[in-house]
Amino acid sequence: MSRRRPDQPYPLSRRGFLGAGGSAALLCTLGGSKTLEDASPRDIDRADAFAARMEKPASARQDAAGPGDAAQPQPGGVKREYWIAARSLRWDIAPTGQDEWMRTRVSGPRKFRALVYQRYSTGFGQPIGPAGMPGPTLEGEVGDTIVVHFRNADEKLNQAVTMHPHGVKYSPQYDGSYLGLFTLAGGFVAPGEEFTYTWECTPDSVGVWPYHDHGPNHTLNTLRGLFGTVIVREKGAPRPDVEVVHFMHSFPPNVTRLRRLFHAVNGRSFAGNTPTVSARVGQEIAWHVIGGDGNFHTFHVHGHRWRDATGTFVDNPSFGPNETITARWREDNPGRWLYHCHVFQHQDAGMAGWYLVE
Amino acid sequence: MSRRRPDQPYPLSRRGFLGAGGSAALLCTLGGSKTLEDASPRDIDRADAFAARMEKPASARQDAAGPGDAAQPQPGGVKREYWIAARSLRWDIAPTGQDEWMRTRVSGPRKFRALVYQRYSTGFGQPIGPAGMPGPTLEGEVGDTIVVHFRNADEKLNQAVTMHPHGVKYSPQYDGSYLGLFTLAGGFVAPGEEFTYTWECTPDSVGVWPYHDHGPNHTLNTLRGLFGTVIVREKGAPRPDVEVVHFMHSFPPNVTRLRRLFHAVNGRSFAGNTPTVSARVGQEIAWHVIGGDGNFHTFHVHGHRWRDATGTFVDNPSFGPNETITARWREDNPGRWLYHCHVFQHQDAGMAGWYLVE
Amino acid sequence: MSRRRPDQPYPLSRRGFLGAGGSAALLCTLGGSKTLEDASPRDIDRADAFAARMEKPASARQDAAGPGDAAQPQPGGVKREYWIAARSLRWDIAPTGQDEWMRTRVSGPRKFRALVYQRYSTGFGQPIGPAGMPGPTLEGEVGDTIVVHFRNADEKLNQAVTMHPHGVKYSPQYDGSYLGLFTLAGGFVAPGEEFTYTWECTPDSVGVWPYHDHGPNHTLNTLRGLFGTVIVREKGAPRPDVEVVHFMHSFPPNVTRLRRLFHAVNGRSFAGNTPTVSARVGQEIAWHVIGGDGNFHTFHVHGHRWRDATGTFVDNPSFGPNETITARWREDNPGRWLYHCHVFQHQDAGMAGWYLVE
Repeated sequence: MSRRRPDQPYPLSRRGFLGAGGSAALLCTLGGSKTLEDASPRDIDRADAFAARMEKPASARQDAAGPGDAAQPQPGGVKREYWIAARSLRWDIAPTGQDEWMRTRVSGPRKFRALVYQRYSTGFGQPIGPAGMPGPTLEGEVGDTIVVHFRNADEKLNQAVTMHPHGVKYSPQYDGSYLGLFTLAGGFVAPGEEFTYTWECTPDSVGVWPYHDHGPNHTLNTLRGLFGTVIVREKGAPRPDVEVVHFMHSFPPNVTRLRRLFHAVNGRSFAGNTPTVSARVGQEIAWHVIGGDGNFHTFHVHGHRWRDATGTFVDNPSFGPNETITARWREDNPGRWLYHCHVFQHQDAGMAGWYLVE
Repeated sequence: MSRRRPDQPYPLSRRGFLGAGGSAALLCTLGGSKTLEDASPRDIDRADAFAARMEKPASARQDAAGPGDAAQPQPGGVKREYWIAARSLRWDIAPTGQDEWMRTRVSGPRKFRALVYQRYSTGFGQPIGPAGMPGPTLEGEVGDTIVVHFRNADEKLNQAVTMHPHGVKYSPQYDGSYLGLFTLAGGFVAPGEEFTYTWECTPDSVGVWPYHDHGPNHTLNTLRGLFGTVIVREKGAPRPDVEVVHFMHSFPPNVTRLRRLFHAVNGRSFAGNTPTVSARVGQEIAWHVIGGDGNFHTFHVHGHRWRDATGTFVDNPSFGPNETITARWREDNPGRWLYHCHVFQHQDAGMAGWYLVE
Repeated sequence: MSRRRPDQPYPLSRRGFLGAGGSAALLCTLGGSKTLEDASPRDIDRADAFAARMEKPASARQDAAGPGDAAQPQPGGVKREYWIAARSLRWDIAPTGQDEWMRTRVSGPRKFRALVYQRYSTGFGQPIGPAGMPGPTLEGEVGDTIVVHFRNADEKLNQAVTMHPHGVKYSPQYDGSYLGLFTLAGGFVAPGEEFTYTWECTPDSVGVWPYHDHGPNHTLNTLRGLFGTVIVREKGAPRPDVEVVHFMHSFPPNVTRLRRLFHAVNGRSFAGNTPTVSARVGQEIAWHVIGGDGNFHTFHVHGHRWRDATGTFVDNPSFGPNETITARWREDNPGRWLYHCHVFQHQDAGMAGWYLVE
């Protein structure tokens, strides 16, 4: 299967709309007679093969909007540019092989082929930071634009992927979503291709939001690791002393080909592998937690309480897929604390970690 | 199995309480050793057969409260009368046979025998609008009463059904719920029978609420389509320019006898079949979204953000079964947008659609 | 298997960290290649056997903090002492054998070996009230301390258990959580042992919170009944006329060894077994509802509406595991009403009951 390049035109399927060549891989198998839970590894293979064969819709072949069409920063705002590539890598879900909370060995294989967003310096010069989950955090203030030069650098799965952001404002060409025959250029970035997204930080963008793949095989590729964070602040707003973003998500065995289901925080499972968060008494903590799979979760931190958006004191709020909650407090309680999702099945399969306060 | 009519008395079971003749169909099979997910089509058949054999509890045979007992509108309020029948019809879950988002054919059979609420003109004269999901929207203002003349016109499943509203106030006889030996007349409307419900729009009724079957086989019959909406506004409150009500629900294959699970919006699955919502820049949009099955969902609209009830900006809030969230904004972003539930399994099985802004 | 007593030292495993003797029972089976849903009764047996063999971590052997280390009440506050033991008992999930709502017999066996918290008078003198689910409600006002003298009196399962509270403030030694090699004394209370927890009612503790086992086999033991409530009020705040706490939870058949799944309110399933709540017109009602299992629920009361924490009128809010919502109103609607979770599968398997208003 040859790798498609920007200079190779994508012929429209002779069979046109709904032809097999234009089918969306995932829905053919998972959205058909089976659900994600029922899908066998072979179904997943088939979905990937479909996705790799998919032709770019004609509507997505047109040149992306030029600089003149992209939104500009508001007066006083700036353009914040990022260079980000989607790439494949072997990912170890539990590098220590242990669960420090329950003092158990993590049984069975733990590595699989992940897809992640990797940040680079200007012009895709050098990688910035390790590739991982979540992808790079994109930051802006109200009035700014966030400009992402995105490259699909995956050479393994050979599928179109995208970046679709929540929270920020964008016109349709920067939506980053596959939409069948209505797909625009940013919604189908084939392997080897690049696309530049321009997103606006409007007053109603203030918050912490996910971004993720929304290409034609988005369910599988998001589960493989194609997700990250956008943070938009009020103009000049200070950052909290400690700011943490946690995606709570899972690795189904039919997707990873591993023997077991892992529930994870930022791509890792079980305390000692999941992020260990540190703070000191007196610091202001903001802990942003985002649902990263198809499940509903709660976020509990031992020894701490905080006000939710209604002003009610909570220590274990619930949230849904791609929904964000923020826990925020002034630290006053030193010790080693556990954080975890309070769904039994999730905490027992790895969705827990340490919070250390000095 | 003869059709029961109002003039045929319902003899109490000789076997009395807990006799087989008086058993609630659904619980006998689904609430017993099996859950809804485990139930075979044969279990569903058995539940339906039980429900069709059920005798009306003696408490429900007494004459319904007369006009003198029903609440009257508050000074300045009005009585809003509706004529609504429950009826059975063949329902196509995806009439186009296609998913416009993912450019796939919707495989396999898509039609099943649904149960829906149909509105009629005064005195059950003529049908008003097509029968479908959700049923007719009932509207009132604070101080009004909503009076529903309800007829069970189903001639296929031959079971007692009801209308149970959320949000509005009612005395027990207008609860519309089967309650075993405590059932009142509105809680068991046998095939061919009629019952008139009177519901009050009180100050704490302001909002958008579901109504649904709450008869003895309510789980199955609600999943078959017996649900609709009540909207109560402040006195004289203007309507938004565009007001949309979406039920997000599902059609389990054991209930529909179809080969696959469909996730649906207003009874339809997959973009191009689910409602295509239209608006123009400058209009005020109110999008009310209600959980219509046993699942938890989120509601995401591409390109848009809004304040939730806490004042926080969101673009993907979560909600539970028969819970309502409202997304409200002044439209400012033209284009073709996708709306969908962000639970992977739901969006991939049809819970998505188009939002078109000019 | 000999019962461990406080005077018997716990030798550290020769195999040290991650040795089989130090494995956490539950995770070995459930968190490994299986999930709770997949676990066979034999897996559960194995988890229990592991838990019964577990050695106390060395860190938990040190003397618990003495009175000098425990927090003292604030000026004007008091110390509220409770004596509570964990004990095993046979528990009938549906003592009437009937479902009054649906007029059905509850099929099959209904009794299993539960683990519950039982309150005693000072110095473990006499039991106070019946042992059951939820355990004793602990109450305090801002400025108070809640001091719980806890004894693990279980003689059947022979496992370490604890009390871990939400909402109140505590230093790590009073967290009541097993933390592997970082476990402190309150996180591993072996059979026959005692531990005294001191928890502070701080201003951000105001609310209604769960407490529950957080020992090394907490998922199973919480599902068996080890949970209860903490209520913290503002100083001098009056109590509502009627105050109800409902845990909405479930009994999976692999844990109970019964033939079927039960969904329960406070340990009982099906109307007539679940609590029947009573009130009179004019009374102020506060109904606190807490998620007690790994599921998400909603709480619906027929004939009533109330403001949620955002000020929005609701009659069916959703909540997650160990999350609390409070429904609060001035009673004005006499009759027999149903309350239930609106997840079909939960209400049909017993999560419903009566609310009687005179």
